[in-house]
Amino acid sequence: MTLQIFPIHGIPEITDDVDLGVLIAEACKAGPQGLKTGDVLVVTQKIVSKAEGAMVAIDPTNPLSHKPLVERESVRILRRRGELIISETKHGFVCANAGIDLSNVARGQAALLPDDSDRSARKIRDRIKGTSDIEVAIIISDTFGRPWRRGLTDVAIGCAGISAVVDLRGSTDSLGRELMVTEVCVADEISAAADLVCGKADGVPVAIVRGINPSWLREGSVREEVIRDPSEDLFR
Amino acid sequence: MTLQIFPIHGIPEITDDVDLGVLIAEACKAGPQGLKTGDVLVVTQKIVSKAEGAMVAIDPTNPLSHKPLVERESVRILRRRGELIISETKHGFVCANAGIDLSNVARGQAALLPDDSDRSARKIRDRIKGTSDIEVAIIISDTFGRPWRRGLTDVAIGCAGISAVVDLRGSTDSLGRELMVTEVCVADEISAAADLVCGKADGVPVAIVRGINPSWLREGSVREEVIRDPSEDLFR
Repeated sequence: MTLQIFPIHGIPEITDDVDLGVLIAEACKAGPQGLKTGDVLVVTQKIVSKAEGAMVAIDPTNPLSHKPLVERESVRILRRRGELIISETKHGFVCANAGIDLSNVARGQAALLPDDSDRSARKIRDRIKGTSDIEVAIIISDTFGRPWRRGLTDVAIGCAGISAVVDLRGSTDSLGRELMVTEVCVADEISAAADLVCGKADGVPVAIVRGINPSWLREGSVREEVIRDPSEDLFR
Repeated sequence: MTLQIFPIHGIPEITDDVDLGVLIAEACKAGPQGLKTGDVLVVTQKIVSKAEGAMVAIDPTNPLSHKPLVERESVRILRRRGELIISETKHGFVCANAGIDLSNVARGQAALLPDDSDRSARKIRDRIKGTSDIEVAIIISDTFGRPWRRGLTDVAIGCAGISAVVDLRGSTDSLGRELMVTEVCVADEISAAADLVCGKADGVPVAIVRGINPSWLREGSVREEVIRDPSEDLFR
């Protein structure tokens, strides 16, 4: 199984009156790779937030003006250092500044995370299916830090049409022993892979990942499969 | 920039008397994709440990017989729950059971992490360059869990010929604003991408990632770029 990852160019600046699913499908179809049933589209969070109007005006002269928003979007503060806040968001994500982002948005605006990124993913998936009869999976990705390791990576905050976590329990390894390490977060791995062609500075908000194991393409949810309940988390 | 990821089949069971760089290069060249300068080869930790003889005999009748090894390979225990130990290894990684693995190894054996995975990566890279004049980058990957999110993902434990972390500071976003979020751990993202074709159960220990941004292909080190010093870590 060879995997191909295509950056999707030509998506215009997004506002809250666009039909995001149709825009994405058209941009994909316009590229030489086209769009095919079985493709996984990784859509970066920023354009989803913009299309859903999850933008808040902030004072552009005050570099800390988004901080009250961070508190509002959080249910639990885990750590503070200087201006950095690591918190659990109302969606259940643990990340810096409640996922609120000021890059790639207009000056004087802050982008919040979508209310329910699994729902956002389903909406895009259904719209593409409804208008073009192509069945794709959708992953909404965002850029998070993590403890212990420097550098950010892209992870999944929502998905539709693909399992977020694939359980290999019961599989055997290549020597016939039952695998102990079994649950792989393929939604995060696909998000990371897509970031390699999207980049932060390139303004490429969508990538197609083609060649994903078809058995993973069933209904899935980041909220239900990936978010670890605080009661089973050793670091909260 | 389109990215392609090829699983490499045909690598035999590895023992500590093999010439790993030559074996990998031959298996890559035997596939339809061949091997090209600029390719990034992701090599899973297990075969590196086997080639380096980092295997320890354990009692196959005792499911806890590797636990003393976990303590020996750790410099600091972060959390315990039941049989699970999350520790900082002597290499500086924070992971479960000090990265010691019993899957895909013979019964009665445990695979330790390589002593210095950056050095392991350089050795494979240099051997391929020396025998075939093809300049590739190497990433050694392993499968780690993480707090807050369920499911495992593959991350980099060593690299050569590629920056582990790419600093986009000073870049501007698509609207011309200076990017605040800037350091991306591309070595982890590439490891995650490769795992999508290697899988845990497939016994495919190497993948080629082709199409990586050439500006990332300079000397790099997971140890120096990725491992966060405990003093700057908010969760240790």
